[in-house]
Amino acid sequence: MKKVGVALLGLGTVGGGTYRILRDMHDDIMATDGIDIEIRHILEKDTAKVEALGVDPDIVSTDINNVVNDPEIKVVAEFFGGIEPARSFLIAALKAGKSIVTANKEMFSKCWSDLEAAAREGGGGLYFEASCVGGVPVIRALTSSMQGNRINSIMGIVNGTTNFILTKMADEGLEYADVLKEAQRLGYAEANPSADVDGFDSMYKLSILSTLCFHKKVPLDKIYREGISKISKVDIEYGKRFGYTLKLLAIGKCVDGKIEARVHPAFILENNPLASVKGSFNAVLINGNNVGDIMLYGRGAGDLPTGSAIVSDIVYAAAQTEHMRFPYGEAEADAFADDFTSEYYVRMTVEDKAGVLAKVATAFGKYGVSINSVQQQADEGKASIIFMIHRTAESKINKAIAEIKSLNEVISVDSLIRVM
Amino acid sequence: MKKVGVALLGLGTVGGGTYRILRDMHDDIMATDGIDIEIRHILEKDTAKVEALGVDPDIVSTDINNVVNDPEIKVVAEFFGGIEPARSFLIAALKAGKSIVTANKEMFSKCWSDLEAAAREGGGGLYFEASCVGGVPVIRALTSSMQGNRINSIMGIVNGTTNFILTKMADEGLEYADVLKEAQRLGYAEANPSADVDGFDSMYKLSILSTLCFHKKVPLDKIYREGISKISKVDIEYGKRFGYTLKLLAIGKCVDGKIEARVHPAFILENNPLASVKGSFNAVLINGNNVGDIMLYGRGAGDLPTGSAIVSDIVYAAAQTEHMRFPYGEAEADAFADDFTSEYYVRMTVEDKAGVLAKVATAFGKYGVSINSVQQQADEGKASIIFMIHRTAESKINKAIAEIKSLNEVISVDSLIRVM
Repeated sequence: MKKVGVALLGLGTVGGGTYRILRDMHDDIMATDGIDIEIRHILEKDTAKVEALGVDPDIVSTDINNVVNDPEIKVVAEFFGGIEPARSFLIAALKAGKSIVTANKEMFSKCWSDLEAAAREGGGGLYFEASCVGGVPVIRALTSSMQGNRINSIMGIVNGTTNFILTKMADEGLEYADVLKEAQRLGYAEANPSADVDGFDSMYKLSILSTLCFHKKVPLDKIYREGISKISKVDIEYGKRFGYTLKLLAIGKCVDGKIEARVHPAFILENNPLASVKGSFNAVLINGNNVGDIMLYGRGAGDLPTGSAIVSDIVYAAAQTEHMRFPYGEAEADAFADDFTSEYYVRMTVEDKAGVLAKVATAFGKYGVSINSVQQQADEGKASIIFMIHRTAESKINKAIAEIKSLNEVISVDSLIRVM
Repeated sequence: MKKVGVALLGLGTVGGGTYRILRDMHDDIMATDGIDIEIRHILEKDTAKVEALGVDPDIVSTDINNVVNDPEIKVVAEFFGGIEPARSFLIAALKAGKSIVTANKEMFSKCWSDLEAAAREGGGGLYFEASCVGGVPVIRALTSSMQGNRINSIMGIVNGTTNFILTKMADEGLEYADVLKEAQRLGYAEANPSADVDGFDSMYKLSILSTLCFHKKVPLDKIYREGISKISKVDIEYGKRFGYTLKLLAIGKCVDGKIEARVHPAFILENNPLASVKGSFNAVLINGNNVGDIMLYGRGAGDLPTGSAIVSDIVYAAAQTEHMRFPYGEAEADAFADDFTSEYYVRMTVEDKAGVLAKVATAFGKYGVSINSVQQQADEGKASIIFMIHRTAESKINKAIAEIKSLNEVISVDSLIRVM
């Protein structure tokens, strides 16, 4: 029987869930995996949390040295969130030879190479399954099940808050602002919802996932990011008529050796496996050159689902004698695509008079942007026009839209949504 | 760089796919996983296959001793199918200290404990990701990502041939026999389709998967098995009206410490994530007490998808210094449920006269079987009745159906389909 000491940094939502799973599953893990996990230290200053979980106060402190200096602690799991002190504490633990486990996508996506250097120095490993898509084993799939593939693309719904909002907007015909308020009331969205609704959370996860997919560092500043706050229920309704569902997607592709990485709302066909991913569920669709499409689906957040991923990483880290290394230096500048292509949905409001459609169509044509279909609906002197645009480059359609906005007869370009 | 010698036993569809992936991905695997894989020997008597793949004939023979006696060979991947000589060859390899990789679900489900004993003797490991659901990493998920969970249930579409047939019957309103013929013509079904359509293939996979889920051996003789050959397009159409999709499911559950394992066609609601799994795709839905539902989806068969799983196992086996053990002895007899409950769809043909429905309903009631809804349709002196039955025990409804069959006015009980 292998006895493994573990430290937990923080007893918040996920830290508490992890504590409960480690306590309740201790004997099961011993029987199945042959590992006797002992929680030897917990960093937490909130004594109410410590008491609520019935933790022995003798193993609780606020001093990272109690973790770093205990040679019996082999695995350190971090639940602080944010960059500091998470980063410094984990680097200290790694340098002391411990493996680390984290759900902290922001810190991990920003500090991966520092952590990797410290891990090499100390000999421990980096485990971050819980950082992306909670309990869904997408990191393990990429590192341990796709070695026989070059990954062509990864496309995921990796943020539960935004998927909850978009699903509710679609199912109940509500506007963004109203659903956001309800999500905040239910605790699905933060008081300051920006990290979720503006796509930052998805961007952090995409950086980690696409780095694993393409074996090249995909830094945050190479990821195009657009959130859902401008989405109108009108667009969701129009999309439905065309057979589309709207999702906030995190997309990584490798085309002709160039990586493109982007987070934005997108229409997907209703027969796409991602279209049926509703509410706070998450899913990731990966295309490998040999395996084809695989999809992994489940809960992307929550104390026990994320705790489940943390515990699986702790057990996995404890069982390894040699840890996986991630030798991804800074990628060359030319590793990234400077443009990408999509089909597009464009909704604009124009003056309802003769010749306007022709002027708009001419502007599209001038930049080589080809129109697939047009629907126009007049209403009190104005007209709403929906264009479905054939696959074209982002750079081209942006130029066309800029020119269209400058036309006198165009009142507003209300929506530009990519279609996958 | 770790240099690892590999042997391939057979160069058929999956063996050939594996050879091509190992050849084409050799440098990628070296760069990402730090493992230099050398194919040192191949067992294959068909020289045409050897030539077609451009294999060096010097590494090809039909003598397993060339594999067993080469100390540089660390991993042996088997593609023969069937029990012998696969079993004997793999046991010899394991006793010689090698790890084995197999996609052979029949042999593995029947001989797991013999292989495990030989693995313990030699110190190598057992890798069988490709035996269940082809390229979809469900085995790795169960062994390496769910350690923090007690699994409540596993429910899967694990056979592509039957899912292709059922999808085509549903989409095109065709009868089973006609679709089977087309599937055979397209190479999706064997000339003798029994292994697929009678549920044997699903049963082998369920034995392996449910053993991993519940950490107790689930032998084949404890699995209820029913195939799809009696499914009529009429039932699929009626099911659609009620909002159901028909799938051949492999189901493992652990309820109050009792395991139930069964393979049979079942109606599932159209919003069940498994309902959207179409054609030859496979998927497995796993419910853990902490992570909740996760689903894994992808191609369950084919040279490259299955080869992808084999290669991932080879790389994974090569990287391990200690291999996972599967200490599942024969499960106690009382580990298994001797009955199980479902909702049911029942279609019968009766004489179209007064009082028949009352007689049938009385027979259901006598055994405590409660009717949820009834639809009756008369046609030339006969009537077709569809009953939707509330959740009840298999034993009860079987007794009720036996009695109903014996009624003079009942011409036939045409279908009894479980509803999940």
